[in-house]
Amino acid sequence: MQPSVFFYITYTLCLCLGLLCVLFVSYWSSQWRGGFSWDGSALQFNWHPVLMVSGLVVLYGIALVVYRVPSTWKQKKHPWKLVHAGLMLLALLLSILGLCAVFDFHKHFNLPDLYSLHSWVGICTVAMFAFQWILGLAGFLVPCSPLWFRNTLKPVHIWLGKAILILSLISCISGINEKLLFVLNGSSAEPYNSLPAEAKFANSLGILIVAFGLVVFGILSKNKWQRPETEGESVHLLLTEETS
Amino acid sequence: MQPSVFFYITYTLCLCLGLLCVLFVSYWSSQWRGGFSWDGSALQFNWHPVLMVSGLVVLYGIALVVYRVPSTWKQKKHPWKLVHAGLMLLALLLSILGLCAVFDFHKHFNLPDLYSLHSWVGICTVAMFAFQWILGLAGFLVPCSPLWFRNTLKPVHIWLGKAILILSLISCISGINEKLLFVLNGSSAEPYNSLPAEAKFANSLGILIVAFGLVVFGILSKNKWQRPETEGESVHLLLTEETS
Repeated sequence: MQPSVFFYITYTLCLCLGLLCVLFVSYWSSQWRGGFSWDGSALQFNWHPVLMVSGLVVLYGIALVVYRVPSTWKQKKHPWKLVHAGLMLLALLLSILGLCAVFDFHKHFNLPDLYSLHSWVGICTVAMFAFQWILGLAGFLVPCSPLWFRNTLKPVHIWLGKAILILSLISCISGINEKLLFVLNGSSAEPYNSLPAEAKFANSLGILIVAFGLVVFGILSKNKWQRPETEGESVHLLLTEETS
Repeated sequence: MQPSVFFYITYTLCLCLGLLCVLFVSYWSSQWRGGFSWDGSALQFNWHPVLMVSGLVVLYGIALVVYRVPSTWKQKKHPWKLVHAGLMLLALLLSILGLCAVFDFHKHFNLPDLYSLHSWVGICTVAMFAFQWILGLAGFLVPCSPLWFRNTLKPVHIWLGKAILILSLISCISGINEKLLFVLNGSSAEPYNSLPAEAKFANSLGILIVAFGLVVFGILSKNKWQRPETEGESVHLLLTEETS
């Protein structure tokens, strides 16, 4: 099998899992949790899992592997840098909106913010994501950034990118677990440990999220699937450096 | 700064964070949760977080980076393979003992097993870990394993090794969060959202676990810190293949 055929099979699996995650989290919130609104009620809270899973996990994961698609390798890298940065910005904005949903809900019910371990890890994840995006913009998109800065930043950017995905997965799984403990053990006739339909469905959503994350890591860890650095790009980088 | 100096600083940080994780989880269980026993009571449950954090996260993480220590590179690889496999076996046994602790506790109180998302991810983690250990033994330690099998297995083994660490981190953080929700919101005078001392301490344990995991990933993601494959090792591998 051609390496690129194997890539496209894995990439298709990644996209399908990502789509399933978004569908599952939306269905959970609308079918079992009453749907959506933006009025400080529990229906506003429902935006939180949908936006975090869609932004912080799925869109973030897809943006991470954008350079790996072989059909883009013959094109210049710069437009794909813009696609990468654009998708990441959208993922960051969705995540921030997801945080606003939960903070507004807490405010409306006079509930304290940021006490659970889930919330501690979650807020660190979004803060690191915002920091990484600004650092990436300064290092790789601003034309006057010096070459030594780009070279130093690149391995940090790659490591931090993977670290944020790990943190996103931890935040989402601990959050779904926490929500199920609250709603099923709090007021439901069927507690979580009787594994009602909602619990089975939301647990399956958690497994899908983990599977998506591991496929993204699989794509990232295969050296053969890295975009080759062409000579032209290095020259472009050097020219940018010399004219800066 | 010499690359190996930077490695040893990072490695020392990794070991210190690992030690802190073990100390924090032991202190949490003994100071706030009443200590340990093996009699089916809540004190038996207390072994669960201690054994999972020590085995599935800390020992597992240390075993993952054992080949990266530069002072071992001048020695033959085979003894270090045995160290890697031995540490992994110990980590696996501690994790299985940690599962026994919680299953026994559930049995004693007639509580159902494996209903929460935490438990679904956790059981998958230990199952994948056991599968990976057996596969690693068959592929890299049994002398008669064919070369094509080793070569095919190696990238899968590396990816699965990282995947299991991610799953371990997810399992531990969701588990600590779940335990705090149970014990603080269940019978405690100070609920989780009032952030009593126990909550602050156990949340900090969670952050330490995440930090340890990310430092291990940092060590693994630096190509310069990979053990160089010497010619002798390749010849040894070929000879093993030819005589098999």
